[in-house]
Amino acid sequence: MDSSIASRVGVKLRQTGELNRRSFLCRAATWSVAAGIGVHHGFAAESNSMNPRLFTFVGGNSGPWTVTRFKTVVGDPIAEPSKIDIVPGGLPGFPAGAQWMLKGVTSNVRYVAREEKVELEARQAALGRPEATHGALIPIRKNAKWWALTQDERRAIFEERSHHTAVGMKYLPSIARRLHHCRDLEVAEPFDFLTLFDYAAKDATAFEDLVAALRVTEEWKYVDREIDIRMIRPG
Amino acid sequence: MDSSIASRVGVKLRQTGELNRRSFLCRAATWSVAAGIGVHHGFAAESNSMNPRLFTFVGGNSGPWTVTRFKTVVGDPIAEPSKIDIVPGGLPGFPAGAQWMLKGVTSNVRYVAREEKVELEARQAALGRPEATHGALIPIRKNAKWWALTQDERRAIFEERSHHTAVGMKYLPSIARRLHHCRDLEVAEPFDFLTLFDYAAKDATAFEDLVAALRVTEEWKYVDREIDIRMIRPG
Repeated sequence: MDSSIASRVGVKLRQTGELNRRSFLCRAATWSVAAGIGVHHGFAAESNSMNPRLFTFVGGNSGPWTVTRFKTVVGDPIAEPSKIDIVPGGLPGFPAGAQWMLKGVTSNVRYVAREEKVELEARQAALGRPEATHGALIPIRKNAKWWALTQDERRAIFEERSHHTAVGMKYLPSIARRLHHCRDLEVAEPFDFLTLFDYAAKDATAFEDLVAALRVTEEWKYVDREIDIRMIRPG
Repeated sequence: MDSSIASRVGVKLRQTGELNRRSFLCRAATWSVAAGIGVHHGFAAESNSMNPRLFTFVGGNSGPWTVTRFKTVVGDPIAEPSKIDIVPGGLPGFPAGAQWMLKGVTSNVRYVAREEKVELEARQAALGRPEATHGALIPIRKNAKWWALTQDERRAIFEERSHHTAVGMKYLPSIARRLHHCRDLEVAEPFDFLTLFDYAAKDATAFEDLVAALRVTEEWKYVDREIDIRMIRPG
């Protein structure tokens, strides 16, 4: 507890738990709903709530994940932390001891077709399995050329030519994955996506294969910033 | 100026302009980049900046747009304001005199194909033409069933069966439009999209036709909350 980033800034996130954690949300991020709709008009159901799909990733000196490898694959680096903390929702301020903080939201699928979605959902595992003591956090940004493409063009590169989903499918359920989108948050984030993976020690080689397979695709030619952070946690 | 919501809360957004407006951003929304990356690691280019695609819509008693019609089309209502203010970026607090505040970001296209995008870009006008004294702000939310669809399914409904882009194209360049996405912001917003339109008085009937044409589509069966706000501003 004493080493937790949150406790260092006095907000006792760990101690107060999820409910209170949410009450510490930044005032400015919540007034639109809280004051505008919640308080004035009594729409309690929509007031005071963070996006339930928001996650905050803190690189610093506390958190359950210990960084074991840290590599700037392409583009500008970020500082290498010793620990990574992953917090549902937001944080009320920049935590003492943190080197950086990245945010993203999970969202609706953007590229998979129905058949692929059905197969993914049938095969994929959730993060947090007890044996999944190995993890990776891979923030990436795609360039302006990618974002100027139309949906069909992006899909063609993503799947028909780069086989992103098909490649990932080969590693299910061993490698669990959660994708977070950063591009449409209120603050200009340094990355477009944060992908979090976890897997058992026995699957570490498979994970290397997966990452290597994706990096040689046509899709990856549009990635202009990528950091590869590997980490472990106690079993 | 004196009637502006912003000036009432003392931040003088109108007077200080875009640069200072950005410096008033909520602390909590900026610390991740400002303190984490900007200050500690000197990535000045990415520090302290709001998403440049963010816009805030304030319903209250000030702003350039005067509300002329206000209708809850489906779902829960919101309060009817007398004025609408539209601010690039965020605001530092809930403005005095405001009844609600809604935020959204413009983003990459999600459904149009290349040929459609080329045609749209060739034909569409930007908001703010001097003659465009009539406006509409239409916040909508789509239901969970929509968001559980895959991209190809949503595209099929949106365009192949509802002809959303094709219908809109018929009204170009008369009716200018800017779409803002709210679903993947940090705070749980009450709507998924905010669409802002402006047009000349002579095109008011055409706008009614456009809105009516979209509301009878298959796509609109997924809209479970919609507010239709019409407004005018001095020419």
